[in-house]
Amino acid sequence: MQHLEQSDIQDLVLSAIEEGYDDELQQIVGQLHPADIADLLEGLPPEYRPPLWRSVDIPKIGEVLAEVADGVGRDLIEEMDPGELSRAVQMLDMDDIADVIPLLPDAVIADILFAVDKESRHDLDALISYPEDTAGGLMNVDTLTARADISLAVVQRYLRLKSTLPEYTDKLFVVDRENHLTGTIDLSTLLTADPAEKVGAVCNKSPVTFGPLTTSADVADAFQRYNLISAAVVDDDNALLGRITIDDVVDVIQENADRNLMARAGLDEEDDIFQPVAQSTRKRALWLGVNLVTAFLASFVIGLFESTIEKMVALAVLMPIVASMGGNAGTQTLTMVVRGLATRTISRANSGVILRKEFLVGGLNGLIWGLTVAVVAALWFRNIELGVLIALAMVVNLVAAAAAGVLIPMLLEKLGVDPALAGGVALTTVTDVVGFFAVLGLATVFLL
Amino acid sequence: MQHLEQSDIQDLVLSAIEEGYDDELQQIVGQLHPADIADLLEGLPPEYRPPLWRSVDIPKIGEVLAEVADGVGRDLIEEMDPGELSRAVQMLDMDDIADVIPLLPDAVIADILFAVDKESRHDLDALISYPEDTAGGLMNVDTLTARADISLAVVQRYLRLKSTLPEYTDKLFVVDRENHLTGTIDLSTLLTADPAEKVGAVCNKSPVTFGPLTTSADVADAFQRYNLISAAVVDDDNALLGRITIDDVVDVIQENADRNLMARAGLDEEDDIFQPVAQSTRKRALWLGVNLVTAFLASFVIGLFESTIEKMVALAVLMPIVASMGGNAGTQTLTMVVRGLATRTISRANSGVILRKEFLVGGLNGLIWGLTVAVVAALWFRNIELGVLIALAMVVNLVAAAAAGVLIPMLLEKLGVDPALAGGVALTTVTDVVGFFAVLGLATVFLL
Repeated sequence: MQHLEQSDIQDLVLSAIEEGYDDELQQIVGQLHPADIADLLEGLPPEYRPPLWRSVDIPKIGEVLAEVADGVGRDLIEEMDPGELSRAVQMLDMDDIADVIPLLPDAVIADILFAVDKESRHDLDALISYPEDTAGGLMNVDTLTARADISLAVVQRYLRLKSTLPEYTDKLFVVDRENHLTGTIDLSTLLTADPAEKVGAVCNKSPVTFGPLTTSADVADAFQRYNLISAAVVDDDNALLGRITIDDVVDVIQENADRNLMARAGLDEEDDIFQPVAQSTRKRALWLGVNLVTAFLASFVIGLFESTIEKMVALAVLMPIVASMGGNAGTQTLTMVVRGLATRTISRANSGVILRKEFLVGGLNGLIWGLTVAVVAALWFRNIELGVLIALAMVVNLVAAAAAGVLIPMLLEKLGVDPALAGGVALTTVTDVVGFFAVLGLATVFLL
Repeated sequence: MQHLEQSDIQDLVLSAIEEGYDDELQQIVGQLHPADIADLLEGLPPEYRPPLWRSVDIPKIGEVLAEVADGVGRDLIEEMDPGELSRAVQMLDMDDIADVIPLLPDAVIADILFAVDKESRHDLDALISYPEDTAGGLMNVDTLTARADISLAVVQRYLRLKSTLPEYTDKLFVVDRENHLTGTIDLSTLLTADPAEKVGAVCNKSPVTFGPLTTSADVADAFQRYNLISAAVVDDDNALLGRITIDDVVDVIQENADRNLMARAGLDEEDDIFQPVAQSTRKRALWLGVNLVTAFLASFVIGLFESTIEKMVALAVLMPIVASMGGNAGTQTLTMVVRGLATRTISRANSGVILRKEFLVGGLNGLIWGLTVAVVAALWFRNIELGVLIALAMVVNLVAAAAAGVLIPMLLEKLGVDPALAGGVALTTVTDVVGFFAVLGLATVFLL
């Protein structure tokens, strides 16, 4: 299978570009699936992308654009002749055209809208009008429909008139004269039921459907829950607008996972490892600036106790341990709670139970590791009181970490802020501040 | 749609359990999809699960077990009568039985193997024999096959004899007399092509197939790349062993994403927010212990410079800023590189380019934020030299962070260690040690 040797293909392509072997390049690229070409493009430094891009055949260009990361796609489009671009995009399915359109220059969009027939233009308008992360943004308009009062034999004759069915067609949508959805009929039912039966007699009369503004996360959830391959999007009057297919849902799941992972480091899923240095520096600097503010907050706390540290430098040596253990323990709680909120296993009803439990786990781990650090600190600095103090500070910080790990994501969700993005910064601010304050404050009161 | 009101259902169920309204509970649960019941169970504190579990009908019990997290499933099974359990599991598809079997007591497994017919027992043996994270572990044996030399009309008659087709049947597998796979034929082709055609004339002769030991990650990759709903698993001789369907692939994608997120905090995807306190404490303590060792390493570095800190306490106030900015910048690089390795956009061929780029981004962000901190520090402690020193230390640590962020995940992958699990700890060890060493070392040499 091709994708298993992706890195070999990458080597081949790289050397073909470097040596200027255009024919060889065209030959390699000609055999690749558009998704593989998209991966290759993303994996090449920007200066290598144009020669590779020029070796892609027009019929594949649209599909590669639909697959490639938006940032990379935008750069590639700049390289292209508008006429070629317009022709390439017109070869795509309606929903892929709708996905690619935000990347295109206005002149090319106008050209495409002019070139497609009236009905397609109407469909395209409808598709573009919904936000990308809604059922309307995910849907396609290539639905096959049937009436309830005709026989399966008639449906079969109708299908035979088409030489192929749209991808991921596992069912037909049963509609009345006003295009209202009254059910769905599976291809497998068409094949197994008596051809003399009426569609209305064998169809599924309560299919899962989505409104056009249902979020893509809810759509993905329902596809997984109810094992769907395709499902209808209907308006408020239950009129059929289009259908969503599992391939787009899989992309949503993958993108959401990716977004979550990236958000934890203040990145977004559009960030590309080969972005120009200036662009990467600017995007990352913003996040580092936010973190710097929180780091200053922790420094300010330490600054309050300068004279304490002067009298006992060992505190400066040990305090990062307490802060870092709090950060790690809190991140564990935060991760569990963010997941629980995403899968909806955590709600008002059980948040009290979870908070109590995490307090206990935090307290116990604070004791276990606090005592360990106490022994090491007491031996290292020959000061038993210092050991006891560090153990106490550890328990305090790990209990605070548990509270922050449970409450911060719940609060952020209520405020409509993504807990994956802001949760980590907020949490480590709490654990740093509490950690430093506990060590230095306790020392000021009890040791000096 | 039911899942949108999950938290309301949770409230209803919770109060029904608390009040002991068994009839009401049974009524609510009777209307739920097995996947919804599984979610409910995961979202309830352990002591609430048995009453809910007892209200699930036998025919649904098997499906709930197949959906619920393994840890929760194991507890529920302990509550059950072995006879009931065996009957419930026998109602499942072969691949779901194979998934549930590791959770079952030996006596129940023996009972099930005794109850199924000889052919099923053979299938089940085959399914159990492959590891869970391989194509063999994902596959089901409910394949529909056809011969190349028969007509589509005959295939249609054969399908009509079955009253239903297995879920996710989008194609039949074309095999010869020895069960070797020679192609696949889509249901849509069956419906659109001339019924007089032979299967061999219209089938797809080079379908995507998997060996039984292909990793589930590679399977998921290929399903996304080639837009599959189902695909064959074949042995070395190309004999058909079974098929993989998209629902199981979606689960793999979701679980891998989940595992990645959890691994970053040293957790695994089996961890359950309602685990007993003792169990959670033990599992998390291990990870905290690993982090403690690295925290001591950083403390040891600080300890080397006790006399420097004694002379200039401002260093103790400012050094956590340098360490923490290094950790954050390094995590950004690490996250980009881990993602690039997972999507195979990063390889030997381009790792040099990436390292150079990240060095530059790290150096520039080091300058930007180093100078900012320098100004604040110089004003705060009325010491310009201290400011210059902190700026220098910041540049050093952010460049080190860039190197660590690129090289650590590449090294870990080469060693076969999951970069998502160990990358973060290794990285912050580097940025803490380098950060503290840079601040205190430079101060010792130049300021004292």
